[in-house]
Amino acid sequence: MARKKLVVQKFGGSSVANVERILNVARRVVETKKKGNNVVVVVSALGDTTDELIELAAKITDSPSERELDMLMSTGEQISISLLAMAIHKLGIGAISLTGQQVGIATDKVHTKARIEKIETKRIEKELQKHGIVIVAGFQGITPENEITTLGRGGSDMSAVGLAIALKADVCEIFTDVEGIYTTDPRIVKNARKLKQICYEEMLEMASMGAQVMQARSIEAASKFNIPLHVRSSFSEKEGTIISKEVKSMEGVVVRGVTLNKSEAKITICKVPNKPGLAAKIFETLGKANINVDMIIQNISETGATDISFTVIKDDLNKTLKVAKDLCEKIKAAGVISDADVAKISVVGIGMRSHSGVAAKMFKTLADEKINIEMISTSEIKISCVVGKAGAEKAVKALHKAFGLHKAS
Amino acid sequence: MARKKLVVQKFGGSSVANVERILNVARRVVETKKKGNNVVVVVSALGDTTDELIELAAKITDSPSERELDMLMSTGEQISISLLAMAIHKLGIGAISLTGQQVGIATDKVHTKARIEKIETKRIEKELQKHGIVIVAGFQGITPENEITTLGRGGSDMSAVGLAIALKADVCEIFTDVEGIYTTDPRIVKNARKLKQICYEEMLEMASMGAQVMQARSIEAASKFNIPLHVRSSFSEKEGTIISKEVKSMEGVVVRGVTLNKSEAKITICKVPNKPGLAAKIFETLGKANINVDMIIQNISETGATDISFTVIKDDLNKTLKVAKDLCEKIKAAGVISDADVAKISVVGIGMRSHSGVAAKMFKTLADEKINIEMISTSEIKISCVVGKAGAEKAVKALHKAFGLHKAS
Repeated sequence: MARKKLVVQKFGGSSVANVERILNVARRVVETKKKGNNVVVVVSALGDTTDELIELAAKITDSPSERELDMLMSTGEQISISLLAMAIHKLGIGAISLTGQQVGIATDKVHTKARIEKIETKRIEKELQKHGIVIVAGFQGITPENEITTLGRGGSDMSAVGLAIALKADVCEIFTDVEGIYTTDPRIVKNARKLKQICYEEMLEMASMGAQVMQARSIEAASKFNIPLHVRSSFSEKEGTIISKEVKSMEGVVVRGVTLNKSEAKITICKVPNKPGLAAKIFETLGKANINVDMIIQNISETGATDISFTVIKDDLNKTLKVAKDLCEKIKAAGVISDADVAKISVVGIGMRSHSGVAAKMFKTLADEKINIEMISTSEIKISCVVGKAGAEKAVKALHKAFGLHKAS
Repeated sequence: MARKKLVVQKFGGSSVANVERILNVARRVVETKKKGNNVVVVVSALGDTTDELIELAAKITDSPSERELDMLMSTGEQISISLLAMAIHKLGIGAISLTGQQVGIATDKVHTKARIEKIETKRIEKELQKHGIVIVAGFQGITPENEITTLGRGGSDMSAVGLAIALKADVCEIFTDVEGIYTTDPRIVKNARKLKQICYEEMLEMASMGAQVMQARSIEAASKFNIPLHVRSSFSEKEGTIISKEVKSMEGVVVRGVTLNKSEAKITICKVPNKPGLAAKIFETLGKANINVDMIIQNISETGATDISFTVIKDDLNKTLKVAKDLCEKIKAAGVISDADVAKISVVGIGMRSHSGVAAKMFKTLADEKINIEMISTSEIKISCVVGKAGAEKAVKALHKAFGLHKAS
């Protein structure tokens, strides 16, 4: 007998923000089951519950133990799974909710940002056989010592993908408040198009650069195990965007999307002496201070000194400046300057690998719009430029048009 | 080396209703530890959290699955234990919170009113050795199938007593919003006195009849294993009331307290044919309908028929009347009458066992106050009278005085 299709469905916090939406999710899940599938549902905490719990902890202490924070935060998902189970029962359909502990979502011991190491399938498989629908608390797991862990921001995505991998699901549907992945932000470019299909690598570049629909780590995991993802809206029946490995139909499309990221700031350490190991020292120091650096540019000049520029998340700017100024003295550089009024614009597309001229076209488009490029960084499937924030949206519009993204592909 | 004294402290929902109170509880716990004790703390959910969660479920469905209700409700205590742990850490003291599952509080499978079957002590003992303070989620346990259960209203008392028994604690302190057990309700009788010490049997009679400070089941359990209970206020340093087995100092005091219970209604099935087995049939039927009957009075008259009266919780009155009227037809009784405007007044004291005349004194006191007695029921250590609600407080005052309860004993 053929095995039933198994669909993993993940609903984020906004999809279960209130009773009405929970009932809506219940209907979606039941429809999927009625189409002949088994369904594993992963839910996040209701609306802003996680933030509210963190605020509650903040009222008690400035520095809560991460172990106790996990104990606290994991209640959010436990509430949503039980309510969703009740909502599905109300429709006359069997379903059971399970915590991370009950499933056996084994993680490492790094509280508040644990990584999944293994997912037991025995209990879920038993319950799927019995009910056809199993609701699993996202964002949470359990250490070998039976301690509750959480998976960090966006961790429910990882729970969903992890379950899809462990259970060999046919598809992992990510329900969110957008209808899919667009060629660019529709709020900026009116004729931005929803993409039918993109590949994992493209999604990774899009997700990590502003189109933050899904946690990057979970896209990587899906890619590694070749689990198709379907990003779609929980408020509409429309098909969303399928994320899968590169397929034939993707050939010929050079640029898939344009992304805009206004959340980074640029920092330059001026006139760093041209001695081996200084760049390493700078980024090692920043790493130790837990500062994530995105782009890095270094240009050696003829004077025997060099300017080193890099970008960091704006929230980290003050901390970074402090570290950089300390460093500046130690390595005898001339000084530190920073600019928070910048934006990073990227064009992304797996087709770039076999097409030259994308960079030239991008730079020319920006030049035609009189937009000055401050930094450039490239990868196999992405070209990013840092420009002044003022011209950023104009740049996105121009690039979207220049690469023909408004036309159906 | 002598073992450290082990104190189990239970804090109810009102003791942890807000951040300030949680910090207060943290100080109480730390003080107890600093006196050289190990401390196991049992906490209920913050304030009215449990009720709020039940209301949330009620918005989803009229008939939530009890298994899912337990999944939902158990989050309340998980929130309070983590916050209390953080509050204790803030004072610079080590502590760890544990869920019912992490402790290993094994219960039966009766969701929403499970009974504790066994408590594992290994994890707690390990953590006590390490931190000296362990915070345990009250009200919750786990079945052999790893399903979350809750212990019913007041279940945190049972958690505390159960832990005290399993860990062979020296005392189990029940922190609440009253300062102890009083000779009667101080809101009715101004010179009501706080009792220094009472025995389990007296506490049981007091608790089940209106002085609802502690769940009866947990008092029984403490009695069985001879765990001293200390009922005291979480808002005051004063000693409360010690509940222990009967001790010498209790001798000579005949009546320990007067209790008033206005929450019951009286029902009479009139002219029940005098046939064997009919009384059994009546109370069997009520039992099957999940109606708890308190007092039962039957007086066989000469006519070959008898009136059977009993009391039930007022909330159950409508349901009871329906069942009673059905029964009435079946057994060919004359009819059913009910009275919700009644109150039950009881005098309680273990000394009654060896002193006669208590009943006579009670009846005479009520007669002197011109209060009509509608029902009487007696046990070894308690005499209860049902009277009209209007005269109830007057009756309590008169009895409190007549038995000399205002005088120190």
